[in-house]
Amino acid sequence: MIDSAPVKSYLDGLQRRITSAISERGKTDFFVDPWLRPEGGGGTVMVMEESALMDRAGVNVSHVFGKALPPSATANRPELSGRAFEAMGLSLVMHPVNPFAPTVHMNIRLLRAYFVDSAGEDVWWFGGGMDLTPSYGFREDAVHFHQTCKTTLDAFDRGYYPRFKKWCDDYFYLKHRDEPRGIGGIFYDDFADGGFDNAFAMMRAVGDSFLLAYLPILDRRTHLPYTEANKAWQTLRRGRYVEFNLVHDRGTLFGLQSKGHIDGILMSLPTRVGWRYKPEVTPNSPEDQLRAFLGPHDWLGIE
Amino acid sequence: MIDSAPVKSYLDGLQRRITSAISERGKTDFFVDPWLRPEGGGGTVMVMEESALMDRAGVNVSHVFGKALPPSATANRPELSGRAFEAMGLSLVMHPVNPFAPTVHMNIRLLRAYFVDSAGEDVWWFGGGMDLTPSYGFREDAVHFHQTCKTTLDAFDRGYYPRFKKWCDDYFYLKHRDEPRGIGGIFYDDFADGGFDNAFAMMRAVGDSFLLAYLPILDRRTHLPYTEANKAWQTLRRGRYVEFNLVHDRGTLFGLQSKGHIDGILMSLPTRVGWRYKPEVTPNSPEDQLRAFLGPHDWLGIE
Repeated sequence: MIDSAPVKSYLDGLQRRITSAISERGKTDFFVDPWLRPEGGGGTVMVMEESALMDRAGVNVSHVFGKALPPSATANRPELSGRAFEAMGLSLVMHPVNPFAPTVHMNIRLLRAYFVDSAGEDVWWFGGGMDLTPSYGFREDAVHFHQTCKTTLDAFDRGYYPRFKKWCDDYFYLKHRDEPRGIGGIFYDDFADGGFDNAFAMMRAVGDSFLLAYLPILDRRTHLPYTEANKAWQTLRRGRYVEFNLVHDRGTLFGLQSKGHIDGILMSLPTRVGWRYKPEVTPNSPEDQLRAFLGPHDWLGIE
Repeated sequence: MIDSAPVKSYLDGLQRRITSAISERGKTDFFVDPWLRPEGGGGTVMVMEESALMDRAGVNVSHVFGKALPPSATANRPELSGRAFEAMGLSLVMHPVNPFAPTVHMNIRLLRAYFVDSAGEDVWWFGGGMDLTPSYGFREDAVHFHQTCKTTLDAFDRGYYPRFKKWCDDYFYLKHRDEPRGIGGIFYDDFADGGFDNAFAMMRAVGDSFLLAYLPILDRRTHLPYTEANKAWQTLRRGRYVEFNLVHDRGTLFGLQSKGHIDGILMSLPTRVGWRYKPEVTPNSPEDQLRAFLGPHDWLGIE
């Protein structure tokens, strides 16, 4: 049986580190809201809303137990059906105030499936990733974000970045509009390469790289002057974010279907969102160029 | 074979009547956007956005043809699988500016399923309904809306209103929050009672009753003074509307899955929407009382 306690401890520490860094920049504390799950386990929501820096930023750690893996978790692994499970993870979404500063999302998690009454061996796997969703395209931001992801993964296997980058492009895609959600990043699941110690080390490497990947981008965009029109464009782009999360995201849908901690599950949704009918976009303006900017692209010139 | 041309003509006329009545009050014209569907048919979107009266109001008429009924339409009627179809309808959503004026939704439609190459008889049915979604509860508005629906349906069968009222309460329900979307109204489908002429007459009666049901409510709420806090509450309630339409509404999901006229399908979504983490609500305030107000209730004291 694996020892998940160090993983939980790592996630708690990472939540503190990330929220401290954002608090310092935003000069606002996160609201801290611990919660318990009736079926077992619980978590801590940390949220900052309507600060000078963030329209909404949420960093949640959860650790839950269940009697049977949900169908969404066993679709590809029917042999695990009926097993009890333990799941822990950190997930975060940050929607900055400045429309030139991109939205960012990260999730890292560990799942363990086991038999309560037998000596059958545990099955466990890690999953996670991070991705960036700009309203305005800055090539250097996309390159920095992807380069940080690549450097992190290359230390484990140089084959990971290309594979997990494509997985991310494929996953964060609005099929109903034939549009990517953002400029991608990395996404992986069912990960157990090299055994528990190695896979846990990779979770730590990905988690530790978050601030390296995002803070330089946030810092160089968050003080750029912007207009009401820029903010209105960001509001429309956030409508796309909502469409993806409510229509396509498997994690969100599972959470809603299982009536989980609803406000926590929907913390990925922004505080200010809008839809307009065929909004006018000036040809060749930065807004017009966003779709082509999003890609998917070979940001690092390696494909 | 039924003659659907008079139905289309009725829907076009109703679209003109409803948009004229709203234009007159809003002192703004609707934007008119005809569109064609590559697979056959098309429609006319009429939309008013960010006027003094309406944050967003859309009244769409569509008339489309297809080679095979979609699975969502044949789930309960497998014998129709593989038939070609003709569908026409009017759907509208109005999100007023004033937070005391409720959002309203109506849809009336005719579906016809037929065999292209055989003499097999047509199968056809009507469906529709209207429902009201207030951010603040006014009992007289809910009673007036339901009474208008009841009066309309009673002329056909006194059993309809109780049945279609319950159908509406059951359908417009946010299962993931255990909350009704609004105060309901009526909803019906697979309707062919009394033959085509009678069923079409009921569509007209429902369509004609829309302005009678909604305008008095709009007129008495739209000039009430309101605060920024009232508007913020409306914005949060509109988040619930988005959650329902993107997560639960079968029509929206079918539209998205089939990559229909996306901006038209999503015209039900408001222009200003927001989410907050566990927003503070003063106990016994009108905001706090909304959940209990929504019901479901026996508004007319007849159940």
